Amino acid sequence: MVRTPEAFREKQGIQVFLHRRVARIDRRGRRLETVSLPGGEKTVVSYDRLVFATGARSRRTGLPGEDAENFFTLKDLQDAIGIKKYVDRNTPRRAAILGAGYIGLEMAEAFVQRGMETVLYARGDRPTSHLEPEISQMILEELGAHGVRFEAGQLPAGFRRGASGRIEGLDTPGGPRDADLVLCALGVVPNTGLLQEAAIRPGESGAIRTDDRQATDDPDIFAAGDCCEVYHRVLDRWVHMPLGDVANKQGRVAGENAAGGRATFHGVVGSQCFKLFSLQVASTGITMEAARRFGLDAGSQAIRGSSAVHYMPGAAPLFLKLVFERNTGRILGAHMAGREGVARRINTLAVAVQAGLSVDNMARMDFAYAPHFSPPFDPILVAAEQALKSV
Amino acid sequence: MVRTPEAFREKQGIQVFLHRRVARIDRRGRRLETVSLPGGEKTVVSYDRLVFATGARSRRTGLPGEDAENFFTLKDLQDAIGIKKYVDRNTPRRAAILGAGYIGLEMAEAFVQRGMETVLYARGDRPTSHLEPEISQMILEELGAHGVRFEAGQLPAGFRRGASGRIEGLDTPGGPRDADLVLCALGVVPNTGLLQEAAIRPGESGAIRTDDRQATDDPDIFAAGDCCEVYHRVLDRWVHMPLGDVANKQGRVAGENAAGGRATFHGVVGSQCFKLFSLQVASTGITMEAARRFGLDAGSQAIRGSSAVHYMPGAAPLFLKLVFERNTGRILGAHMAGREGVARRINTLAVAVQAGLSVDNMARMDFAYAPHFSPPFDPILVAAEQALKSV
Repeated sequence: MVRTPEAFREKQGIQVFLHRRVARIDRRGRRLETVSLPGGEKTVVSYDRLVFATGARSRRTGLPGEDAENFFTLKDLQDAIGIKKYVDRNTPRRAAILGAGYIGLEMAEAFVQRGMETVLYARGDRPTSHLEPEISQMILEELGAHGVRFEAGQLPAGFRRGASGRIEGLDTPGGPRDADLVLCALGVVPNTGLLQEAAIRPGESGAIRTDDRQATDDPDIFAAGDCCEVYHRVLDRWVHMPLGDVANKQGRVAGENAAGGRATFHGVVGSQCFKLFSLQVASTGITMEAARRFGLDAGSQAIRGSSAVHYMPGAAPLFLKLVFERNTGRILGAHMAGREGVARRINTLAVAVQAGLSVDNMARMDFAYAPHFSPPFDPILVAAEQALKSV
Repeated sequence: MVRTPEAFREKQGIQVFLHRRVARIDRRGRRLETVSLPGGEKTVVSYDRLVFATGARSRRTGLPGEDAENFFTLKDLQDAIGIKKYVDRNTPRRAAILGAGYIGLEMAEAFVQRGMETVLYARGDRPTSHLEPEISQMILEELGAHGVRFEAGQLPAGFRRGASGRIEGLDTPGGPRDADLVLCALGVVPNTGLLQEAAIRPGESGAIRTDDRQATDDPDIFAAGDCCEVYHRVLDRWVHMPLGDVANKQGRVAGENAAGGRATFHGVVGSQCFKLFSLQVASTGITMEAARRFGLDAGSQAIRGSSAVHYMPGAAPLFLKLVFERNTGRILGAHMAGREGVARRINTLAVAVQAGLSVDNMARMDFAYAPHFSPPFDPILVAAEQALKSV
């Protein structure tokens, strides 16, 4: 989207083949068998080093009816254009969204802005179940304030289709529900098929396992982006965390090494943020639940503070939970939500998590203060100081 | 302002004496000689521990004419009320501000909002001369965009007064200038007189020297706030940096220790921020000039980035300069300015400075990304990565 094939060729000497699918990787011969689309013409391309950047695809329900013209997934720009066109032409009244992760929530906001009655159907009992429960609660309230219904544990077991072939309703555990449009937002599945056929086994997560140079088991094949795993520094394990900025960084490392360089990618701590209507949500490190699951002895400290001095215009309440290792006080995670000053605050804690700082270290930080931007004691300092009492 | 004497007494058992000046400290007898105002009645109060929190006063010009009713300084709420009343009653047309630090700049904005022609007269050649020159330049442009004139090197040598006694003009090196109101914003002088009379010598800066427990040379006398110095962690020296949040923290430490506790204050790295019209300015650590002055071998990397992905509403250009130690790459300072996403970004770098992280450490940070809040590579990451090349 950002550059044309001509720009790649002329400015950087990079050849771009469009409409050409790779059918098979021949590792021993270092060749790719490619097939042109739609012609089906076969060509063999040889390589010295290969960068595998096949991304991920939307997870689907597997139910009959996914071929209906009002069933959508959202992974790329074409998907978005397809949804927009359908809404423009058919003005559906009721949207059903399957899944309550980032994509489901962001699309709920978009559908509401288009005037649609919007319902989120989730597998679990709360939205963004990978975040802290208090934050899910704030998201629920934000959804409710904008008329979005959340149906817990109500992923459909089937679709009802009308004479036109369109989906007209869902069969959920709680009974039938009407819908004029279905968006399936159940996450993504890494595209690893070609590599698996070439006998490169994925990691535990199902995505491609690499080392810190983004090399796979085959030292001449590198992988980057949503198709592969990333090292999680707090969990000390490889995970599948398909996020755009991580993909971007991995791609640079893979490209540099494929060209003979020696770049390394030092992994992530799980920093992420998003916006839902006027609520900002941001997170870094791990939750209490993840700490328990992976056997870390963690405590937490939650506070409700203010994004700025209360008399300043725009100052808004802010929720912050610190997760820390008992005994050492090392900060393992931080989780925030509020209407103002949330997303831009999280990286301060991302540095703390990545640098292995303790709540004691954080309580002593010298932060910039002006009443527009924070209280004299920033909520981060307040939370760290309160956490000190329970380390 | 926040609590009444009654609230202190009833809720916390703290006695508050108003309108009672301390005339002398008798360290040997651990007594204060006090004088009631305006009666002049003398009383002696004994103490076990004393906390000295006398703050600072506005620095004045020393020129004849400061007694005019249209000459103002701005240190406390009463000063602000005085200025506001004068403006309400006399609708001065031309404001002359002496000094171009935070107070001078913030008041320039206030006077412009009241419709006054506003001129800043400065000793040096740029506003906020303690910050990086590029930031002074952005401040100059912001002043210019709002019609505020900046007169470099034009602090007045005298005031011209009219028949009413009011100041009507300034005699500056560049010639006479008209003014209907003068605000003197030349910084503050710590109030140390009583302690000096009690033979406690101030630090090099002229403010009271304490240790990290906020104790003075007399172990029973503590000091906190604008009257005393603070340890600067990057410069490894004690400085006078009268800022509200620092005073607040010092006060808590002094109070706890005066009551028998063992709290310590670990100093500052010089984090600060302010707003001028729609420009945000934020800074942590030291400038290149300070590095040179104190003999640190420093390099710098300046970038111009964007506060968010360029297509998002509200995204704005942002200037960021990193100052780092050559050889080690340790980040010594960071200086930012822009219309959006500046002040809330600086604490991420404040943590880096305080924790002694290098530009290499920062270039590897995993930050939260969403297009509303940052580009996929946050400006901090871009600056750190570029700085790596010149460490």
